Amino acid sequence: MEMNDLVIISVDDHITEPPDMFDKHLSKEHLATAPKFGVDENGKNFWTYQGMFMPSVGLNAVVGRPLEEYGMEPNSLEEMRQGVYNVDARVGDMNVNGIAASLNFGTVVGFDGGRFHKAPDKALALIHLRAYNDWHIDEWCGAHPGRFIPCGILPTWDMDATVAELKRIAAKGCTAVSLNENPTTQGLPSIHNAYWEPLWKAVADLDITICLHIGAGNPAPHASAETPIEAWITTMPMSCSVGAADWLQLSAFERYPSMKICLSESGIGWIPYFMERADFSHSRHKAWTHSSFQGKKPSDIFKKHFMSCFIDDAFGLDNLKYLNEDLIAYECDYPHSDTLWPEVPEFLWKTLKGLTDVQIDKITHLNAMNYFNFDLFKHNKREDLTVAALRAQAAAAGVDTTPKSAGGESPLAAGEEPRRITSGDLMKMFAHHAEKAKAAG
Amino acid sequence: MEMNDLVIISVDDHITEPPDMFDKHLSKEHLATAPKFGVDENGKNFWTYQGMFMPSVGLNAVVGRPLEEYGMEPNSLEEMRQGVYNVDARVGDMNVNGIAASLNFGTVVGFDGGRFHKAPDKALALIHLRAYNDWHIDEWCGAHPGRFIPCGILPTWDMDATVAELKRIAAKGCTAVSLNENPTTQGLPSIHNAYWEPLWKAVADLDITICLHIGAGNPAPHASAETPIEAWITTMPMSCSVGAADWLQLSAFERYPSMKICLSESGIGWIPYFMERADFSHSRHKAWTHSSFQGKKPSDIFKKHFMSCFIDDAFGLDNLKYLNEDLIAYECDYPHSDTLWPEVPEFLWKTLKGLTDVQIDKITHLNAMNYFNFDLFKHNKREDLTVAALRAQAAAAGVDTTPKSAGGESPLAAGEEPRRITSGDLMKMFAHHAEKAKAAG
Repeated sequence: MEMNDLVIISVDDHITEPPDMFDKHLSKEHLATAPKFGVDENGKNFWTYQGMFMPSVGLNAVVGRPLEEYGMEPNSLEEMRQGVYNVDARVGDMNVNGIAASLNFGTVVGFDGGRFHKAPDKALALIHLRAYNDWHIDEWCGAHPGRFIPCGILPTWDMDATVAELKRIAAKGCTAVSLNENPTTQGLPSIHNAYWEPLWKAVADLDITICLHIGAGNPAPHASAETPIEAWITTMPMSCSVGAADWLQLSAFERYPSMKICLSESGIGWIPYFMERADFSHSRHKAWTHSSFQGKKPSDIFKKHFMSCFIDDAFGLDNLKYLNEDLIAYECDYPHSDTLWPEVPEFLWKTLKGLTDVQIDKITHLNAMNYFNFDLFKHNKREDLTVAALRAQAAAAGVDTTPKSAGGESPLAAGEEPRRITSGDLMKMFAHHAEKAKAAG
Repeated sequence: MEMNDLVIISVDDHITEPPDMFDKHLSKEHLATAPKFGVDENGKNFWTYQGMFMPSVGLNAVVGRPLEEYGMEPNSLEEMRQGVYNVDARVGDMNVNGIAASLNFGTVVGFDGGRFHKAPDKALALIHLRAYNDWHIDEWCGAHPGRFIPCGILPTWDMDATVAELKRIAAKGCTAVSLNENPTTQGLPSIHNAYWEPLWKAVADLDITICLHIGAGNPAPHASAETPIEAWITTMPMSCSVGAADWLQLSAFERYPSMKICLSESGIGWIPYFMERADFSHSRHKAWTHSSFQGKKPSDIFKKHFMSCFIDDAFGLDNLKYLNEDLIAYECDYPHSDTLWPEVPEFLWKTLKGLTDVQIDKITHLNAMNYFNFDLFKHNKREDLTVAALRAQAAAAGVDTTPKSAGGESPLAAGEEPRRITSGDLMKMFAHHAEKAKAAG
């Protein structure tokens, strides 16, 4: 195998929702109360919904810029690459990056649909959440059959509605849902509460994979406002270990042995240590904690029920023998600042080279196909989905990858000399961005 | 080499301070205002100081009990093994466990001396903090020359006093200090603030190692009150990654190239991933973050300035080539519930077996000796400090390791049937323990 033969599925990418997302999926009456996209007098975009104001239309959607501008927050669709919000342009960007298929999370709705959880009128929120799913599954993913793995969101504040919505989207062919990894941060019972039992049963019955994206529930902590932001970027993926340990204790795995969890944007190199530590903790403490893992070790349960994924992780791949090689997948994280677009194949190939062809196929696409019940080769032939074939398509279509300066809010004050950017700078930038947009909007 | 030939230094253990700790180190006047040890009418112990009430005299000091009682909080010295608070008994417990030397953190004073930071009268706090250092260095460590690596605490709320105290304890032969890994949690400036410059200069000048014990600064998060406590036990050591990433960005390493940090109770198996992730984050983001590492990679800085340590970490030791093998050490964590006492040599030998004799000697004692400027063989001959020799001493002295039921507060309510213990149960137990002690005290 060589780099150009790779067939790559990414199980973690993001969409900035386009202004017309709800137009085809709501009645006139419900469209009137749906989230509204706006443009202020300075050309900045924002969304408003049920009294909430969301200026971060394309949170960290910095793909395609020079690296110097990766910390600048885009303020409008014009400041983003078109592939961020337009599905045809997105497929072009996937092609040029050798990505055969992609699973996407929303932005303004929250990775986990959290926006609708914050809405005071939950009856309306349910209607609009369903419209989001319709748009995401039918319009976005449906536009290019076989190129997207749909991922729905659920109205988990209402368990009956949740199960009904799960059944509805499953009937449309949706095989994944994104949940908040820590629903107590949304005011809901913890995942260990009987409240969730109908959902666990439903995902098992319908063979749906639960995606838990980092940052949606448990915090990714900043040590201090003066801490250089690179520290936070470094530890952000590992912060999902708190959620991973929490879910690993879920007694539902005993009752629903087919339950599937995907730790979206987790990284993999820390996981062998984590599993060993979970086994140690259980062996030394079970006499008083009374935790139980069906008579097995926590690592056995992790290896059975948890997929993890990586952007660039040589150490993790060097230690594949400690992991379940059937539950490791690739993620591109387009259009966020960690993405290696448009050079994913080059980076990936370097770290895959020590593996067998069978392992490479599993990690690049077979595992994702299997875990998400996604038939990559139903609509497109395998030979048309390799890195070489997709890049040839992109070349024919003239996809331009030249870095382009794109503007947006800078973490530095106007005219300030470059200096180490801190967590506090980022927090201030977001606050300032929100204030300015609100004042002008 | 075989197990009995190992010479083991532990760089992370704990002392429950004895009632008479201040008696020999304060004037009558200052003794009157020092932390006071008390016994309530139910026989429970507590400390009081400057209006604060501290019922957890031996936080998690459960060594020597049957594993079923590892979650029960000791309420009095009587409910603990004598080695927890008595230095002669401690040396017996070290001998029977094959531990040649040990670095200890305090309990009632806080791992980092945090108790004195919380005291309203800082002039008194400084006097009592100095007395703690005198007790710790002269009385506890001094009782058995060559068996303890002293570790001081500092009045970091006052930088002049901090530098003066550092010089004072360094002159006594103390080569380590314990700091809060995140001083912003104590209301002090972050470690990136110029406030700390005199301390960085002083530790470099005096060749002192800074110990950052997990749990003293950045939180080790519980996902929810309903989360089984084993989840928290699993991720607690890894929670130090937030502090590690913060300190890794310290620009002082450039000005003080001999600065030494020890991540106490860190574990090691996650660190190769962490370093790779730090390198990735820097390479992809430095164009806008302006972080800098003297033209090197973050992993180069980590490998130069950070010691990490482990209790039981087969995966980390299997991946020693990714770490700096000169900065890995063992930790016993006596008397806390993760400790493998009295079977450390048996557990350790299993995970060391794949290493060379040179590597084994480094990890078991040479690295700690070097990093802490501690001459293990000054007062005792090497052949008297091996596992075999120490255990022979313990046998001659009749050190009894039979697990003994020891009482204390249970996370279960009186008469409650055994069930999975949660984070909330532990929080309730501590709250109840504090309430009962306060009411009775």
